[in-house]
Amino acid sequence: MNPENTTVFNLGECTFDSPLQTPLFIDDSSRVLVDVQYNPGQVEAPPTFENAGPRRKIYFNPKKTTAAIVTCGGLCPGLNNVIQSIVRMLYSQYGVSRILGIRYGYEGLIPDFGHEFMDLNLETVDDIDEKGGTILGSSRGNQDVGRMVDTLVKNKISILFAIGGDGTLRGADAIFEEVKKRGLKIAIVGVPKTIDNDIVFVYRTFGFTTAVSHAHSALLGAHAEAAGAKNGVGLVKVMGRDSGFIAAYAALASSQVNYVFLPEVPIRLHGPGGFFNHLKERLIRKKHAVILVAEGAGQEYFNTAKETDASGNVKHGDIGIYLRDEIKKHYDAEKFPVTIKYIDPSYLIRSHPPSAEDAVFCIMLAQNAVHAAMAGKSGMLVGFWNSYFTFVPLSSIINRRKKVEKKGYLWSMVKESTGQPDFD
Amino acid sequence: MNPENTTVFNLGECTFDSPLQTPLFIDDSSRVLVDVQYNPGQVEAPPTFENAGPRRKIYFNPKKTTAAIVTCGGLCPGLNNVIQSIVRMLYSQYGVSRILGIRYGYEGLIPDFGHEFMDLNLETVDDIDEKGGTILGSSRGNQDVGRMVDTLVKNKISILFAIGGDGTLRGADAIFEEVKKRGLKIAIVGVPKTIDNDIVFVYRTFGFTTAVSHAHSALLGAHAEAAGAKNGVGLVKVMGRDSGFIAAYAALASSQVNYVFLPEVPIRLHGPGGFFNHLKERLIRKKHAVILVAEGAGQEYFNTAKETDASGNVKHGDIGIYLRDEIKKHYDAEKFPVTIKYIDPSYLIRSHPPSAEDAVFCIMLAQNAVHAAMAGKSGMLVGFWNSYFTFVPLSSIINRRKKVEKKGYLWSMVKESTGQPDFD
Amino acid sequence: MNPENTTVFNLGECTFDSPLQTPLFIDDSSRVLVDVQYNPGQVEAPPTFENAGPRRKIYFNPKKTTAAIVTCGGLCPGLNNVIQSIVRMLYSQYGVSRILGIRYGYEGLIPDFGHEFMDLNLETVDDIDEKGGTILGSSRGNQDVGRMVDTLVKNKISILFAIGGDGTLRGADAIFEEVKKRGLKIAIVGVPKTIDNDIVFVYRTFGFTTAVSHAHSALLGAHAEAAGAKNGVGLVKVMGRDSGFIAAYAALASSQVNYVFLPEVPIRLHGPGGFFNHLKERLIRKKHAVILVAEGAGQEYFNTAKETDASGNVKHGDIGIYLRDEIKKHYDAEKFPVTIKYIDPSYLIRSHPPSAEDAVFCIMLAQNAVHAAMAGKSGMLVGFWNSYFTFVPLSSIINRRKKVEKKGYLWSMVKESTGQPDFD
Amino acid sequence: MNPENTTVFNLGECTFDSPLQTPLFIDDSSRVLVDVQYNPGQVEAPPTFENAGPRRKIYFNPKKTTAAIVTCGGLCPGLNNVIQSIVRMLYSQYGVSRILGIRYGYEGLIPDFGHEFMDLNLETVDDIDEKGGTILGSSRGNQDVGRMVDTLVKNKISILFAIGGDGTLRGADAIFEEVKKRGLKIAIVGVPKTIDNDIVFVYRTFGFTTAVSHAHSALLGAHAEAAGAKNGVGLVKVMGRDSGFIAAYAALASSQVNYVFLPEVPIRLHGPGGFFNHLKERLIRKKHAVILVAEGAGQEYFNTAKETDASGNVKHGDIGIYLRDEIKKHYDAEKFPVTIKYIDPSYLIRSHPPSAEDAVFCIMLAQNAVHAAMAGKSGMLVGFWNSYFTFVPLSSIINRRKKVEKKGYLWSMVKESTGQPDFD
Repeated sequence: MNPENTTVFNLGECTFDSPLQTPLFIDDSSRVLVDVQYNPGQVEAPPTFENAGPRRKIYFNPKKTTAAIVTCGGLCPGLNNVIQSIVRMLYSQYGVSRILGIRYGYEGLIPDFGHEFMDLNLETVDDIDEKGGTILGSSRGNQDVGRMVDTLVKNKISILFAIGGDGTLRGADAIFEEVKKRGLKIAIVGVPKTIDNDIVFVYRTFGFTTAVSHAHSALLGAHAEAAGAKNGVGLVKVMGRDSGFIAAYAALASSQVNYVFLPEVPIRLHGPGGFFNHLKERLIRKKHAVILVAEGAGQEYFNTAKETDASGNVKHGDIGIYLRDEIKKHYDAEKFPVTIKYIDPSYLIRSHPPSAEDAVFCIMLAQNAVHAAMAGKSGMLVGFWNSYFTFVPLSSIINRRKKVEKKGYLWSMVKESTGQPDFD
Repeated sequence: MNPENTTVFNLGECTFDSPLQTPLFIDDSSRVLVDVQYNPGQVEAPPTFENAGPRRKIYFNPKKTTAAIVTCGGLCPGLNNVIQSIVRMLYSQYGVSRILGIRYGYEGLIPDFGHEFMDLNLETVDDIDEKGGTILGSSRGNQDVGRMVDTLVKNKISILFAIGGDGTLRGADAIFEEVKKRGLKIAIVGVPKTIDNDIVFVYRTFGFTTAVSHAHSALLGAHAEAAGAKNGVGLVKVMGRDSGFIAAYAALASSQVNYVFLPEVPIRLHGPGGFFNHLKERLIRKKHAVILVAEGAGQEYFNTAKETDASGNVKHGDIGIYLRDEIKKHYDAEKFPVTIKYIDPSYLIRSHPPSAEDAVFCIMLAQNAVHAAMAGKSGMLVGFWNSYFTFVPLSSIINRRKKVEKKGYLWSMVKESTGQPDFD
Repeated sequence: MNPENTTVFNLGECTFDSPLQTPLFIDDSSRVLVDVQYNPGQVEAPPTFENAGPRRKIYFNPKKTTAAIVTCGGLCPGLNNVIQSIVRMLYSQYGVSRILGIRYGYEGLIPDFGHEFMDLNLETVDDIDEKGGTILGSSRGNQDVGRMVDTLVKNKISILFAIGGDGTLRGADAIFEEVKKRGLKIAIVGVPKTIDNDIVFVYRTFGFTTAVSHAHSALLGAHAEAAGAKNGVGLVKVMGRDSGFIAAYAALASSQVNYVFLPEVPIRLHGPGGFFNHLKERLIRKKHAVILVAEGAGQEYFNTAKETDASGNVKHGDIGIYLRDEIKKHYDAEKFPVTIKYIDPSYLIRSHPPSAEDAVFCIMLAQNAVHAAMAGKSGMLVGFWNSYFTFVPLSSIINRRKKVEKKGYLWSMVKESTGQPDFD
Repeated sequence: MNPENTTVFNLGECTFDSPLQTPLFIDDSSRVLVDVQYNPGQVEAPPTFENAGPRRKIYFNPKKTTAAIVTCGGLCPGLNNVIQSIVRMLYSQYGVSRILGIRYGYEGLIPDFGHEFMDLNLETVDDIDEKGGTILGSSRGNQDVGRMVDTLVKNKISILFAIGGDGTLRGADAIFEEVKKRGLKIAIVGVPKTIDNDIVFVYRTFGFTTAVSHAHSALLGAHAEAAGAKNGVGLVKVMGRDSGFIAAYAALASSQVNYVFLPEVPIRLHGPGGFFNHLKERLIRKKHAVILVAEGAGQEYFNTAKETDASGNVKHGDIGIYLRDEIKKHYDAEKFPVTIKYIDPSYLIRSHPPSAEDAVFCIMLAQNAVHAAMAGKSGMLVGFWNSYFTFVPLSSIINRRKKVEKKGYLWSMVKESTGQPDFD
């Protein structure tokens, strides 16, 4: 179905300069395709992703198939929903009845840890969608690939669903390569999980909108705290190790945020045009301010020897604590006392059950993961792109990050909403 | 930025038939474009929409411009957020300082009703994003087009933002045509508002995810009621006059829904293979059931003379009450007593403030509506398509409805999730 | 008003040492004053209730005791919490390990219905406090007393916890009398459950504050609907068959309620000084109004032949629907069109899990019910009076109702808050 | 424990007729018993409090009266509700039209700070009950008493409502003494505000149940975090400087809490029978644990030089951080790795709007504060005792704290619910 007429009426020639400060003006001639499904008549084939969904022919015999599910890394709203939907789809729709839950992340594939498998069936997953966390438990870090594949073989596991972020998916890719090297017929299917929403070529990940929603609640609290004191400053830190999407969206969702700091945009605190001067002027004028900072922002202020955690993520300096202390120190020195309240809701946010919208997204991801696995896809994940679910090779997305572009539209909107300048 | 490799690895040839009942199998060769921005090298131009966003040149001189905002039709979560963001963008970013709020829908443009304009500025819109409803008030139905245009002229209004659904946008298009006929330089810009999410070529409308979220809460209650009684039936009616998106998404969000009825799918209640037999079997087996019905479902059961309301919508028979009474009557006659609890949360849902995600969506819509208006676009609305905001002629979208396709993917997923068959 | 009888029946001498580790045993002689307003001239001993709490000596040998729990009547937030706490206290503190759940109210004690007992233990009650409803199911109405006692005897049940309202407690008292007549050593202990908070000499019942809280949400919605339309009227009906406590408290909790109607206060709609005139004046002045009505209000408008439901409650005419239709009819006749939105959130309210405060209250009630039963108290319930938990004979509280006094302080506060006059 | 003095100070004879329409005036001689446990042998009159409520005769002429409101100390859910209800009662019921809001606590009574008064009327307080924080702002600490009284005199303020905790009420009492010394006719009326619920002879304070409710949410998150990791420990710190009521109630409200630490109960961490051994055994058995700690618990672990903050409260060592670090250190040393997640939701909790029940409580407190002030009561606060609102002299309650009794019933219930032993 195509629209009959897509030409917008213009009153006449535009003759005034726009007063906007954005670098992002769009020409009238810039157009968006209506149908993003690939048109074969096209001369040069544009890059495309494989469309997700059930296949008419499948690879595995459901009656003889054992599937396993593992959750890795930090908690994220929706983990239990993905588990539930995979089990329901496998069991009720495909007729796979042996489904194993791997305990505590990849540790559960290494016998030394002594974690027994959990039997997953319709009863064990009943109601788990209303609970935060993961019924399987999780852990950070990868394990010996050879021994994990040995465990899959020994337990006759034909399908492994790996639910996790960048580190987990790197691990899944390594398992996939080992499986391929050994000539095994085991499907390794990833389900992307990153509350930060930072996986490339995946428009959106589950848990993200839930996180934005709870960040919004924290910002309401921060605003009440800030407005309740003379020169009150409410400072909220949210998740966002390398990409500031949660902070950017939460700032748009909350009309009372005055400053947002992202990993992608450097902050200069001192000097003319720096943050401290701007904040002081605002406090004099308005008596309070709300600041939202992503955990990965302002890392230029830390001379850390760049340690990494078990998942291989660089350990960050704590910018929330740093800002809280520096703000206090700076204005104390200027004899301009401020009252600063610092809120770090991270663990509260990620341990929630998902919003209804994330719950729907989880079920769709999970159904497509099962379709992929049953059709014998492997070394891939289920993505979401241009409103379509997609099947994407793991090798295409690991070791990369989706970022908020400093000169892009989202950041431009955030600045329009908060009214803050760039501090660089 | 394009992915380096998009070819998914396959373990080998698929030889088993899928046991799935869906008519919607996708071939491996079906592909989704990575970049949906139009590629000019293409031989035949595919249909496209104009890309939204700020223009380098604008049409109106901000200092001499008066803008007006009107909200029409039923309440929808996010109305106040759209109003707030339009005012903030006009005032703080473009420098337009005379902004009028039209009271109680199009009535406010007809002097006889005696509704005075409301002055809108940063102070009057402060904090309104945390409140449900609309500070402007609303009403259903259109008014005399000539007299409405007279009011615009008399009050030197150069831009009219009309926030509303199909009826409102038809009204806006009529105003646009009259303005064009008179040769006036007034921009008429629509912001689509439909909690049912049923506007064509608009992927998503604000308030929809909020509605799904609160429908989910009602379903939790219905499940507790159903499980709390022998042969307990929880029946929930949600919005969805012509399109069942809210019901479909809410069913996916709630793992305890057993039956969903949409306007797009006929329901046969009686006879073998009919709903009543299926429900009885379930009650005998499970002792309780949860049913979710969209308000426009089952209209084949009403021989109404198809009256219309002030907005021109066909008045529906109340399928919730009908089902409640028929279920009771049917099983009483069979001496199979059921306990049925009926929940209609519609007004509670639509009067809420928006979820954080809808709040973000509202701000983005509103910013683009202002960009369009300032650039002199008219007779159009701001759409959202393939992850892009778009400018779309009103004439392309009015008098049409986006529907849940009976043979489509969404309905297929819902049936996989609830396990219900088709009852037709 | 004083209770007629405050002496709790004891099954016999307590001969076992309590296994509890608490230093805080209560003597049976410890009493709580019924009336705390001090009367200096008083000569006679004032009426008192027996103080609740653990007894040093207990009547039943925990190792040989079977307890049973039954939930009756409509859902109420906290039922699962009471069940959970009774089981935990019996099992972990007293060492009673055979605990039976009676299914679907008193029906579950009549073998003909075929409802099997549910085994209750720490695992079956884990997490149920986060869910609305009752895991045991419920039903309305009493059953044959003799046959119920036969079932207790046949299954060696020594303690029956009956969780329910007036009808349930009347049933419990009948069972108690039959047990006594037969000379059986079975303790019958009531836990008062009435979302309406209408049991005499029980200051507060669980679920009540949760109900007020959700009624408050509905009122926010009603206010948004009312303010969103010209002459908008938001009408909310809440529970309160005979006593208007939920409506009275919800009106105090919501600063936007303009009129409250309770069962205890007659409403005159027509004529000078009647409600319709007052509402019209308000609409002319303020353009909108919010009305809150308890389900038992305005019964003088129904000439019903006073049917009763299975619980023996008089069936009420639906005052919410009546008011909605009469308001519309009245002002249409006056050519003063109003827009009325009617919200009935009753099933949504009662199916919720409890607020944290009600959850605490449930655990305290349940612990004291177990203390009473283990000490051989029978034919009594656990009350809450003047900040103390009490043991009260069932015969003192059944067939009576706590009411909002028309000339009392609560109603006076409500009228001060809404500003409404009396319409009688 | 009995109060030393229960006689409320009266400014003088009440000569004006109350304008209230209530039939329910209370005599000054009406009293409420302090202790409701009945003591049959008692000869002497037992201690009583003065019963709150409107008086038939009032002291101040409403038309010539200026009232002022000040909020001091930390945020607490319900502050805006108290402000709103005081203003509504003064204005609509008593006819007092000049009401001043003092900004930023007692600072607002010292001209040097330059905080102008805020005019309070029905419009400025409309809707504020839905917002957290305080529209007046707050600050910690007292100011020069003489200069504050000078400000009252200069601005013809006849009534000062001081909303705050122990420090604020000490300040109010000092103002009262100064006013009395100068022979001024100014009523000083306290409204007790302590989220910790630690004011003696006040059964409950507003904001407390809201705090318990949000602590409950944090505990759900902590449980998800704990269960999601091998040997996972969720640690939550809540408010409770000197009294552990929030922690005790939140533990009862949440069936998943395993350990609670209060200021009133010492914790021994090390050695046999110490906490660390007990926790380890639980982790080996159950793999996870949830710990709830009140901020004032475990102060024996800090050798701080007992600094005080501006309110005169002793500054506590941060037991949350301390426990988090000590647990980690201890088990690392034992080569028994645990995963600990620490959540401190304090600012989020206290910045919320109140629960519906707290909102009702606020309105009742505020109405009685106005009744007291108009009747010329001074140097007193509004209490709540044995289900009655009371008028209590400030001198009776300052410099004392209500505590959780280590050998009392509440702590006993908590231990029964968590199953923890004493660690002392």
